[in-house]
Amino acid sequence: MSNATGCNATGFIVFEGGDGAGKTTQIEALAQWLRSVERTVVVTREPGGTPLGAQIRQLLLHGDHVEPRAEALLFAADRAHHIATLVRPALERGDVVLQDRYLDSSVAYQGEGRDLDADDVRRLSMWATHDLVPDLTIVLDVDPAVGRARRGDSHDRLEREADDFHHRVRQQFLAMARQAPERYLVLDATRDRDELAGEIRTRVAALLGMRA
Amino acid sequence: MSNATGCNATGFIVFEGGDGAGKTTQIEALAQWLRSVERTVVVTREPGGTPLGAQIRQLLLHGDHVEPRAEALLFAADRAHHIATLVRPALERGDVVLQDRYLDSSVAYQGEGRDLDADDVRRLSMWATHDLVPDLTIVLDVDPAVGRARRGDSHDRLEREADDFHHRVRQQFLAMARQAPERYLVLDATRDRDELAGEIRTRVAALLGMRA
Repeated sequence: MSNATGCNATGFIVFEGGDGAGKTTQIEALAQWLRSVERTVVVTREPGGTPLGAQIRQLLLHGDHVEPRAEALLFAADRAHHIATLVRPALERGDVVLQDRYLDSSVAYQGEGRDLDADDVRRLSMWATHDLVPDLTIVLDVDPAVGRARRGDSHDRLEREADDFHHRVRQQFLAMARQAPERYLVLDATRDRDELAGEIRTRVAALLGMRA
Repeated sequence: MSNATGCNATGFIVFEGGDGAGKTTQIEALAQWLRSVERTVVVTREPGGTPLGAQIRQLLLHGDHVEPRAEALLFAADRAHHIATLVRPALERGDVVLQDRYLDSSVAYQGEGRDLDADDVRRLSMWATHDLVPDLTIVLDVDPAVGRARRGDSHDRLEREADDFHHRVRQQFLAMARQAPERYLVLDATRDRDELAGEIRTRVAALLGMRA
């Protein structure tokens, strides 16, 4: 992990990308390989990676209308608790943490979707986590319409409108990756899954100083 | 209300002070008087002034350990939702809002108690509320040991230690009041309750352009 306190651990790996991009499949494949080479792996996700987070997630998903800034603060609270109680202790033990969604999802989705300023959303998350930045973020990139087809959704008007939103979100992910290429691996999610797994393995092995 | 968007309504009145200072009594007396002169009054509180806020309050009070920054973010989420959905609409209708605890409580209690920076706590609240500052904050000031006695608590060692904390909190309230005296009314909470109510009425009448 890289952070403001100068700590340089090396095992915080985040997967980003739209629904249908195949994050779950690739996280499982990478975890399986890491365990086969005797690394301890923690697989987790946001939101909802802790018992408190699961309760916050319930508020967000099943409650009534939540004000945009209240929603952003609830996501940040989930993150603060998750990073402090689960992710940092794991990294300090030397485990590899594979996480489904993190900071970039908040910036891309909340910053695009909810009348919130993307910089505000980023600042909130950085404060929540004492500036914990992933060592590697793997973006599984897919055209929103393709992702939707892979999920088996239909193609009505509302979904085409939603595609515009998801198109902007996708551009956000790609822009963040361009700004810090040393901390990102962007992959075309439509490629063969074993090929993708191999490429991820190679990059992670280099990060962790191992042989793929 | 005073805020960044330049809106100048005049009816957001907050009561602060330790437990046992008599906030509830004075809020009731002021609400009764305002209603007697045909003002519409909304009495509310933080945390927990909305259904979402009540759920957040449950998480905070009845859950397991919550990380300090997660706790601060949950309080801020409660506030964001409360101000946006209840307080601002009331002020925009021209109602007078009497609120038990607000920004200064967060700064004084969280800033003193939880390894959090008071400026961070303030910034979080200001962002949460789009910079809503009360028109008047009434501080019912009481020595912590006196407040404890008024609540009927006993005097064991732990409570004397807690007095140190409450003493620092009290000093925080007084310091904030000194920095913006035009927006504060600090009262000795040990005085006669009707006398206090009279003084509060006089100041509020001036604020609202009414006769006491």
